[in-house]
Amino acid sequence: MEQSTAKKPIRCKAAVSKVAGQPLEMVEVDVAPPRAHEVRIRILCTSLCHTDVTFWRMKDFPAMYPSILGHEAAGVVESVGEEVVEVSPGDTVVPVFSGQCGDCPDCLSDRSNICSGLPFRFLPGMPRDGTTRFAFAGTGEPIHNFINVSSFVEYTVVDVAHLVRLGPGLMIPPDKACLLSCGVSTGVGAAWKVAAVEPGSTVAVFGLGAVGLAVAQGSKMRGAKRIIGVDLNPDKCEIGKRMGITEFINPNDTGGKAVSEVIKEMTGGGADYCFECIGSTAVTAEAFSSSRMGWGKTIVLGVASGAAAPISIPSYEILRGRSVVGSLFGGLKPKTDVPLLAQKYLDEELELDEFVTHEMGFDDINGAFDLLTQGKCLRCIIWMDGASAKENGNGGVNVKPKQNGTLV
Amino acid sequence: MEQSTAKKPIRCKAAVSKVAGQPLEMVEVDVAPPRAHEVRIRILCTSLCHTDVTFWRMKDFPAMYPSILGHEAAGVVESVGEEVVEVSPGDTVVPVFSGQCGDCPDCLSDRSNICSGLPFRFLPGMPRDGTTRFAFAGTGEPIHNFINVSSFVEYTVVDVAHLVRLGPGLMIPPDKACLLSCGVSTGVGAAWKVAAVEPGSTVAVFGLGAVGLAVAQGSKMRGAKRIIGVDLNPDKCEIGKRMGITEFINPNDTGGKAVSEVIKEMTGGGADYCFECIGSTAVTAEAFSSSRMGWGKTIVLGVASGAAAPISIPSYEILRGRSVVGSLFGGLKPKTDVPLLAQKYLDEELELDEFVTHEMGFDDINGAFDLLTQGKCLRCIIWMDGASAKENGNGGVNVKPKQNGTLV
Repeated sequence: MEQSTAKKPIRCKAAVSKVAGQPLEMVEVDVAPPRAHEVRIRILCTSLCHTDVTFWRMKDFPAMYPSILGHEAAGVVESVGEEVVEVSPGDTVVPVFSGQCGDCPDCLSDRSNICSGLPFRFLPGMPRDGTTRFAFAGTGEPIHNFINVSSFVEYTVVDVAHLVRLGPGLMIPPDKACLLSCGVSTGVGAAWKVAAVEPGSTVAVFGLGAVGLAVAQGSKMRGAKRIIGVDLNPDKCEIGKRMGITEFINPNDTGGKAVSEVIKEMTGGGADYCFECIGSTAVTAEAFSSSRMGWGKTIVLGVASGAAAPISIPSYEILRGRSVVGSLFGGLKPKTDVPLLAQKYLDEELELDEFVTHEMGFDDINGAFDLLTQGKCLRCIIWMDGASAKENGNGGVNVKPKQNGTLV
Repeated sequence: MEQSTAKKPIRCKAAVSKVAGQPLEMVEVDVAPPRAHEVRIRILCTSLCHTDVTFWRMKDFPAMYPSILGHEAAGVVESVGEEVVEVSPGDTVVPVFSGQCGDCPDCLSDRSNICSGLPFRFLPGMPRDGTTRFAFAGTGEPIHNFINVSSFVEYTVVDVAHLVRLGPGLMIPPDKACLLSCGVSTGVGAAWKVAAVEPGSTVAVFGLGAVGLAVAQGSKMRGAKRIIGVDLNPDKCEIGKRMGITEFINPNDTGGKAVSEVIKEMTGGGADYCFECIGSTAVTAEAFSSSRMGWGKTIVLGVASGAAAPISIPSYEILRGRSVVGSLFGGLKPKTDVPLLAQKYLDEELELDEFVTHEMGFDDINGAFDLLTQGKCLRCIIWMDGASAKENGNGGVNVKPKQNGTLV
């Protein structure tokens, strides 16, 4: 049935960002057929990540508007362009902003997950030719795509290097697959691949959004003994403890003491691994100060809103055997590692259900922005079409909002 | 013979720094006997490291003057305080600014060389009681010691945690042992322990002083394929190539192009390991930019003259899998690793002879400051007493200046 649309534009619904920080507008768009190495997918569900919000707010990002944001999703292949052999129509797939061409020195090395064959940029445009597949229905005015995915639309086109196929053996519900598309993988991967947390370690997590809580999950899986969560939102204490946090610090409740001082006292010198999951250079500096001399490692995961904002660490302090490391997508190679995480979920080694605090229909997408910016949700799953989610056969997922406006 | 002075002050000659940036003054000082856990040593030879110069120039360092600088040396134990069993009078020793108490979690871990039992500080004072063993002869006015060593004096007192004993099997000449006291060990250790350079790697070294050239030596020992040296002094090209550098960049000769751009072009994307050996936060940023995305590591070795000067790295850039790590003493544990380096020298695996570009007598010590600040020497060995060096039986070392004022 889906093949009948192949090689033709598909007219469908999209939530378009026209002006920085303003509500998305539901409009009809035309989605061009996939070119060589590209795949057109029907989005089953998408979710909102803080990086979408960061870019949605940016007034001066070059040539960004109008744009179709969104990069966490699960979908089904509708049609494929020339040269695509890896996936076929009907396959369940997860798009990932970060690519894996499979041929470059980085993809061939197990030291890197930063594909240099199709280098990741925050700029719009398809990775191989820089053009877009989206246009407003009627006028034909082009609409930019976003970090190689653009999931706030019923159909999108993604380069095959940015697609992970979930084989028939991985019967993971689409909302859980969607979580692995960015935030949760980033957090789990950071603990697993970037920090390589050891059993018995002490971990501090700055920012208990989905990424931070996924770091807690990953650290717990790796056998960390103490996982200290830091967040200004007191509601994060309870959810944090369900997700692996063993201790909680609210920076407003330290009696004016720096969080790094509190952590140093609690741990007798500092944490072995400190994760910055907010995207604040000030928090990065505080995380670094909270890390133990001798071997403390600070892992930077958050994308700072001023992309060029410098990480400022006193030069004298870094001499004492501490280090700072950054990563994209938690150091994971999408095609290699996302299926492993899906399997860990099916094996009940990785908790994903708790991350889905809200669900809603596509038409209500602006409500998801409100929930996330108010710190009221971890992940809100946005179902493009409830019927599609059910017919995919991946389990009878509830398509109604799970809760309204409160943090579970 | 030496025992006869035990438990008494020793009156001897010292080169005292009285005013920031002004020539040292040769004066008579009294060196108190060692207290518990301390050792008094007769300095055979000392050398000047850039860190001495950095601190000698600091006008506002707290309570620094008058001070006996110097921290690279080789000596012979004169007498020991209570509780000292590790060394005995007559032993050949190398003092190290960084301690190894042997009992703290850091000394017991192979992940750290930052002793937390006797934490290193840049402040004066003996490590256990904060007092000094030096006073002006006659007046008794105290003179500060410097980073646990103070070697610009005929006799000094050092905590046993800061002493490395070179057993009778390690017949390394004192001037070569002196090199292992700080700079050369720091550079070799950084390549060996901190970066753990792999065979076939590409390395960039910023600053070809003794530390940078020791990084080149260490990288060569570890099998690096390309070792790119960066220095403003064109004379460093030739000496660099003798010490392991395979390519040389003079930042003045790049036609205005940033060094990082040149390195990225030369290496197809950046070096695997970039070493900052100058103590400049601007150079740290350039080294970071020269490191390869995916796995490039920047190792900070230099002590910036503004101790709190921040390392500024664009937050966006660190997300691409790069890291920054700092170390003191090249990640080496003094007592464990310095004897291993001495053995590597005796086995002709480690080149040390080339580092000694000049030699002079103690009275000429201000000339060594001139040579180093003018970039004319790598290490100038300052012999306290030519006769002592010879009678130590460690080989007939030439006590005359090796060359005058030119770089070998």
